[in-house]
Amino acid sequence: MYSFTCDYTEGAHPEILKRLAETNMQQEPGYGEDSFCTEAKTRIREAIGCPNADIFFLVGGTQTNSTVIDGMLERCQGVLAVQTGHIAVHEAGAIEFSGHKVLTLPQHEGKMDAGDLEAWLEGFYADETYPHMVQPGMVYISFPTEYGTIYTRAELESIHTICQKYKLPLFIDGARLGYGLASPAADVDMEGIAHLCDVFYIGGTKVGALCGEAVIFPNGNAPRHFFTHIKMHGALLAKGRLLGIQFATLFTNNLYLKLSKHAIEMATKLKAVFEQAGVPFYINSPTNQQFPILTAEQMAELEGKVAFEVWEKLPDGRFVTRFATSWATKQEAIDFLISCRSL
Amino acid sequence: MYSFTCDYTEGAHPEILKRLAETNMQQEPGYGEDSFCTEAKTRIREAIGCPNADIFFLVGGTQTNSTVIDGMLERCQGVLAVQTGHIAVHEAGAIEFSGHKVLTLPQHEGKMDAGDLEAWLEGFYADETYPHMVQPGMVYISFPTEYGTIYTRAELESIHTICQKYKLPLFIDGARLGYGLASPAADVDMEGIAHLCDVFYIGGTKVGALCGEAVIFPNGNAPRHFFTHIKMHGALLAKGRLLGIQFATLFTNNLYLKLSKHAIEMATKLKAVFEQAGVPFYINSPTNQQFPILTAEQMAELEGKVAFEVWEKLPDGRFVTRFATSWATKQEAIDFLISCRSL
Amino acid sequence: MYSFTCDYTEGAHPEILKRLAETNMQQEPGYGEDSFCTEAKTRIREAIGCPNADIFFLVGGTQTNSTVIDGMLERCQGVLAVQTGHIAVHEAGAIEFSGHKVLTLPQHEGKMDAGDLEAWLEGFYADETYPHMVQPGMVYISFPTEYGTIYTRAELESIHTICQKYKLPLFIDGARLGYGLASPAADVDMEGIAHLCDVFYIGGTKVGALCGEAVIFPNGNAPRHFFTHIKMHGALLAKGRLLGIQFATLFTNNLYLKLSKHAIEMATKLKAVFEQAGVPFYINSPTNQQFPILTAEQMAELEGKVAFEVWEKLPDGRFVTRFATSWATKQEAIDFLISCRSL
Amino acid sequence: MYSFTCDYTEGAHPEILKRLAETNMQQEPGYGEDSFCTEAKTRIREAIGCPNADIFFLVGGTQTNSTVIDGMLERCQGVLAVQTGHIAVHEAGAIEFSGHKVLTLPQHEGKMDAGDLEAWLEGFYADETYPHMVQPGMVYISFPTEYGTIYTRAELESIHTICQKYKLPLFIDGARLGYGLASPAADVDMEGIAHLCDVFYIGGTKVGALCGEAVIFPNGNAPRHFFTHIKMHGALLAKGRLLGIQFATLFTNNLYLKLSKHAIEMATKLKAVFEQAGVPFYINSPTNQQFPILTAEQMAELEGKVAFEVWEKLPDGRFVTRFATSWATKQEAIDFLISCRSL
Repeated sequence: MYSFTCDYTEGAHPEILKRLAETNMQQEPGYGEDSFCTEAKTRIREAIGCPNADIFFLVGGTQTNSTVIDGMLERCQGVLAVQTGHIAVHEAGAIEFSGHKVLTLPQHEGKMDAGDLEAWLEGFYADETYPHMVQPGMVYISFPTEYGTIYTRAELESIHTICQKYKLPLFIDGARLGYGLASPAADVDMEGIAHLCDVFYIGGTKVGALCGEAVIFPNGNAPRHFFTHIKMHGALLAKGRLLGIQFATLFTNNLYLKLSKHAIEMATKLKAVFEQAGVPFYINSPTNQQFPILTAEQMAELEGKVAFEVWEKLPDGRFVTRFATSWATKQEAIDFLISCRSL
Repeated sequence: MYSFTCDYTEGAHPEILKRLAETNMQQEPGYGEDSFCTEAKTRIREAIGCPNADIFFLVGGTQTNSTVIDGMLERCQGVLAVQTGHIAVHEAGAIEFSGHKVLTLPQHEGKMDAGDLEAWLEGFYADETYPHMVQPGMVYISFPTEYGTIYTRAELESIHTICQKYKLPLFIDGARLGYGLASPAADVDMEGIAHLCDVFYIGGTKVGALCGEAVIFPNGNAPRHFFTHIKMHGALLAKGRLLGIQFATLFTNNLYLKLSKHAIEMATKLKAVFEQAGVPFYINSPTNQQFPILTAEQMAELEGKVAFEVWEKLPDGRFVTRFATSWATKQEAIDFLISCRSL
Repeated sequence: MYSFTCDYTEGAHPEILKRLAETNMQQEPGYGEDSFCTEAKTRIREAIGCPNADIFFLVGGTQTNSTVIDGMLERCQGVLAVQTGHIAVHEAGAIEFSGHKVLTLPQHEGKMDAGDLEAWLEGFYADETYPHMVQPGMVYISFPTEYGTIYTRAELESIHTICQKYKLPLFIDGARLGYGLASPAADVDMEGIAHLCDVFYIGGTKVGALCGEAVIFPNGNAPRHFFTHIKMHGALLAKGRLLGIQFATLFTNNLYLKLSKHAIEMATKLKAVFEQAGVPFYINSPTNQQFPILTAEQMAELEGKVAFEVWEKLPDGRFVTRFATSWATKQEAIDFLISCRSL
Repeated sequence: MYSFTCDYTEGAHPEILKRLAETNMQQEPGYGEDSFCTEAKTRIREAIGCPNADIFFLVGGTQTNSTVIDGMLERCQGVLAVQTGHIAVHEAGAIEFSGHKVLTLPQHEGKMDAGDLEAWLEGFYADETYPHMVQPGMVYISFPTEYGTIYTRAELESIHTICQKYKLPLFIDGARLGYGLASPAADVDMEGIAHLCDVFYIGGTKVGALCGEAVIFPNGNAPRHFFTHIKMHGALLAKGRLLGIQFATLFTNNLYLKLSKHAIEMATKLKAVFEQAGVPFYINSPTNQQFPILTAEQMAELEGKVAFEVWEKLPDGRFVTRFATSWATKQEAIDFLISCRSL
């Protein structure tokens, strides 16, 4: 059976395993002070065109969101996100655990609208009781979003401009950053991302690594004590080499984008399978997550053959499903899907 | 140059890398529901003789301490530990970040004394103002301690008895558990540990793994919602397979204890090097961490040849140092140390 | 100028000041162990028909909500409330500060609908990813709500039944409890409230006291260590007598309800003033808060004569305002309002 | 029976009750924006010679400590205090609840020694693992201390100088400030206190008020959003007038210091009673708390006649006790004590 349930079903790209093995017995200091982390930082700084960037390697996505947000907010500030933002729904309250409210805005195909953001902020400060409410302290968006959609450069610029007007740092959750940047629909590259926000992360877990997210403060603007802050959050890896080696490898010979492009190619083919079968989509995603709407019959036909996620049952009895491709998706998996009678 | 600075300077035992590679493209669900985690849990339950144990795999030590302690304490409770306990000193306030005070007792070569514990508890409840103070909610000890010392079975039993009398769960930090159990001075095995506490963890990071700590509630006594709690703490690994594979490997063919024994053999040889040179020790450690007291001349002689940690400068000008061996320490490193003129 | 801005513009009912003065030099222990707190608890237990109730006196509303909610939730649980609930909007993130998310449901004239609640809970547990989300741990409603509306007994029973089905404690925020119970629209009394929830509080601050809220666990079901928990939250008053005297007075000769009834009589007259002037209401409130919709001209006419709050500007240019009466509202204030030309 | 158990056994100074009554029906805005708070702030600014001071009124001591400390610390910072500091022992973990560790130094008759402080800071930064530890972010001292002792101006200057060198704000807990300043041993006045720290508070609860502590940032250096921060901590009183009236009264005609002097006069007489009876003291306190060491026979003799606190049983069977005087202590109470046969 082939699984399209998510983009973290396999291990790591073989190059990563190879380099882990090659360097295995090399003695290195812990906590990110190893030579691999140094190498990875250099490579990433080059890739994003930010020679002064502060870079930290963390282990996972929820951890990264919580550590970054809590690290940049003042005590009585909250973070603005759309209702469907990962931090608002699927992080088990990790942001609130650190003491901060997630202030939610409406979502538009998973995206934040600059107009909504500005209206919210204007409304907030127009309400004279605002000192009795959580103060906005940061804007959080995902690229791509939880629905696979991506922001255009113009949209990012609009949001960033409003953030600057209100002195709010803009944080881009890039858990699937590569899959956004590799999309044919993208009109921004990694350097563009770095210049349109105050902090972002490059997701490794979903793009070829065993684990790891690279947090980047493009202008060397990491909060002081951020290392200690990471440790306090339980997010400091003793053998930082594990993260350093992975990111050094992903940023050698453009591997990160190559893997991302593969996932998008597979997603495009997968999308075509459904389109040719006349299956509609819940949302028009240009990235590695696709959301076909299946009938009960189609679901039954695929059962036991292909694994995928069911997101929602629609009132008419059909199901919104999620099929994800990744760096590891094989052509044979797509071929098998094509062979399934119901599609 | 050979480094004895700590026990996490290398990658992972080759068997682990091998199995990571072999299983790399096998598709598995995330978040610890993969077949490797299941296998690892089965193997660990056998090794500790607790068929009903609840087991969770976390990534690192500070994270594990913080997640377990916060998960078992009520809101206004604190955790009792010796002053030199890892949670009291070197975790950047991770316990306090989760809202709990570390209540400290005196240390005796890094260990908690059952008598001290009982006296503290008696004194606490004898003070009629105790409801105005942090309530004791758990006892934390390390096996081995931060000074490399270990508890005897009798000492563990004494502490456990007091814990039971006061209805306090006993938590054993086993970041270096293998190195304690493999010590010739140990009169308790892993099954014994499991039966003398309410929760403990088997450290992987320092004993052959790239990362990973196995948290064990021996009697199936994990707090409800503990999975969600782990996620909230940012401690849930998406690719749980990384942890599952490592622990499954470490608990196949007794690898965990074999690696531990190797480290202890190397430590015994290392200790002999210093003893034969007439170098005194700060503490008599029977495990993989050794604390020779070196003169400034001896320090100078070793500089640039052998790396180690300086813990403290004594009033008389000498230095307390730490030399750690591990599963990865080579005989040639010991030989090189012997060859250093000053020893 | 008369102010209708809120229900805490005056000091305390004269009986309270009188008793404060009479008992002033009587020496009493601190922290709620004084004889007045004991008296107040006895009187409240009688008034609510719960002889075993656990009762604690806190100082203010936000503090009480935060202390109670954090005291009853487990670590990774959140509290369910309607979007307009006080804890969701106007408490500066006090609930999140204590680590818990406020999970919001739609509001219906400020109230939670039992059907919405059940649907939310069913949906939550039907989503197989629920362990990755904040766990529901309590239901919070206000009586009356932030819009002045009140629940019927049947509505409370419906909500309570669902809470019991899902083992969720029901918490009733009674910051203005008296004004709800004294409403002609109320079909439940204080004893009824006590029997239809797991914890509630009787608001003193807005009903005749200088400060103070009486938290009640009707079945003696206070969480253990709740006294310590209050202290930890900074909510324990040294001179507990200040709270004890006030609640003892309010619960002598039915003063609390008498004061409440006065406020409702004044509100009824105030409502009539607007009705007779043909002014529409934003919401039909049967309690002490009234929400007339005024035109810009009406606003201008009242300016400098009568103080009130502006809640919202409507798209058509009119304004939703709030006029509150209280135990202290004088008939002459109503008369003056009647005399204002624009009404 | 006369009680010397603490300095909060009575209500408030009659002038306060009088002014509460006089102003009772005056309508005022809430949350500290009333005219009384404004008046109180003006009077306090004059009394401390700091025309730009930011002043906030909170309700109680633990609440104030927690709100101020959490408001000034960065996320991963802790607060330095002596082991016997109130925040380290008797606040039920309120500081840890807000996420911060209390870093403890030795106490010398309840006081912090500038040399200890400097040595601690030097040692901290000399330890190269310091980024793995809680970062020092503030120094907390009490004036007078929990043992009734006070700092000399020179001692305060020494501590302040070290704080400035390390850029650590100095916070002075003045829960009993008046009783320190009124002591014949004091060589500093309120203006001096204000100039030798970054934030302090003037305790009202123990010096004539029903409740209330005035937090002062002498140089207008309150953290931004501090109002919201107070609300988030549950420490914002709705009827701020209650605090404003009390502090306005205490700072009219020098009442605060007059009350304080009375307490010290009573303490001096009380001390003499014990001295004349040959009773030794645990500590030589120059303020309103006295710590006579009584034998079991003396304790028995006083039982049922005079109330006081027992702090500790000494190894020789005698008891360290605490007798506190206050603004409310009557000469007849001292006379009665003299009449007790055993003294």
